[in-house]
Amino acid sequence: MQTTRTTPSRLAKRAHYDEVTIHPILDEALFCTVSYTIENQPMAIPTAFARKGDKIYIHGSVGSHFIRTIENGAPVCISVMLTDGLVLAKSAFSHSVNYRSVVIFATAEKVTDETEKMEALALITDHLVPNRWADLRPTTDSEMRKTTVLAFSLAEASAKVRTGGPNDDPEDLTLPTWSGVIPLKTIRLAPVPAEISKAIPLPDYLA
Amino acid sequence: MQTTRTTPSRLAKRAHYDEVTIHPILDEALFCTVSYTIENQPMAIPTAFARKGDKIYIHGSVGSHFIRTIENGAPVCISVMLTDGLVLAKSAFSHSVNYRSVVIFATAEKVTDETEKMEALALITDHLVPNRWADLRPTTDSEMRKTTVLAFSLAEASAKVRTGGPNDDPEDLTLPTWSGVIPLKTIRLAPVPAEISKAIPLPDYLA
Repeated sequence: MQTTRTTPSRLAKRAHYDEVTIHPILDEALFCTVSYTIENQPMAIPTAFARKGDKIYIHGSVGSHFIRTIENGAPVCISVMLTDGLVLAKSAFSHSVNYRSVVIFATAEKVTDETEKMEALALITDHLVPNRWADLRPTTDSEMRKTTVLAFSLAEASAKVRTGGPNDDPEDLTLPTWSGVIPLKTIRLAPVPAEISKAIPLPDYLA
Repeated sequence: MQTTRTTPSRLAKRAHYDEVTIHPILDEALFCTVSYTIENQPMAIPTAFARKGDKIYIHGSVGSHFIRTIENGAPVCISVMLTDGLVLAKSAFSHSVNYRSVVIFATAEKVTDETEKMEALALITDHLVPNRWADLRPTTDSEMRKTTVLAFSLAEASAKVRTGGPNDDPEDLTLPTWSGVIPLKTIRLAPVPAEISKAIPLPDYLA
């Protein structure tokens, strides 16, 4: 949703407020950074998350100072960035980055419904490793009691996206300097079994 | 430096305060997230940066709301995370992430010395693409006037690092579930020339 604080002061043409842009970025990014404030001091914690509909979920220990600070509705800013490429222009000034980022302004809602809480934990697990949850033993009551799940609305989310090649000043176009894009990609390497799992076949969902 | 706010409430054994741990994380990460506060609302901006000694530099447009908010010494929290692997345990609860993160609490010093400012821009450029700066035409006075460079001390920086395989509860060790690590890596793909640079040989530093 476009609000005063989701409207960028710079390069507003790169801003998007539609879920068709925002949701896939949130679904592709594995981690977000949650920024919050303690007595005017900004703090930031990178953490796993998952989206369902127009909400995202994070989880943490019930004893975490971070979780306890934000669980009662302190304002947070959740940011995600996917970096797709380094954009090399003819001049240093026109160098840029191809990225897809999302910023969410929200306050936490503590998830107290046990079914929604369990589903959120499954979503967070499967967001990192699709189909993992179904392969795991049930989560125990004790584990559930030690875990807080927080939900955040995407109502005040915005995306910013840059794609394409360099935008050089006209007077630089004839310079003999190489220009273009170096694509960046995050990849998963072959799974490395724990010592105790060396005899266990790698599940299909990890192959 | 270990201070009250750089001491984690959780897993303090993963915290580090020495530059031998902190500097390589900052040198490997391409982007940081700068969190700041406007009237108690946390905000966050991902941006490029570079380290020199016990300082990091960022840059931005002189007209950027973000830059103008923090350039006069508002408290910021700068965070960086490198994700090295997804740690799959026998239980959902023991799943984890191998990561190397740095959090810096600091306030901006605006770099007004022209030599230091130019050097910072070179460092930021070469941090993303080593040896790029020397291949570029000189930055003009007009470009310098449009750019603000901010420096932040690493005095109150801390790192948090997790490595290794899953740590399962003893009673889960005999479960038939596969456990181990899925390594994550960010790679650079082959450079893609801009249309106007197709006839220009790829420089050695990009090969």
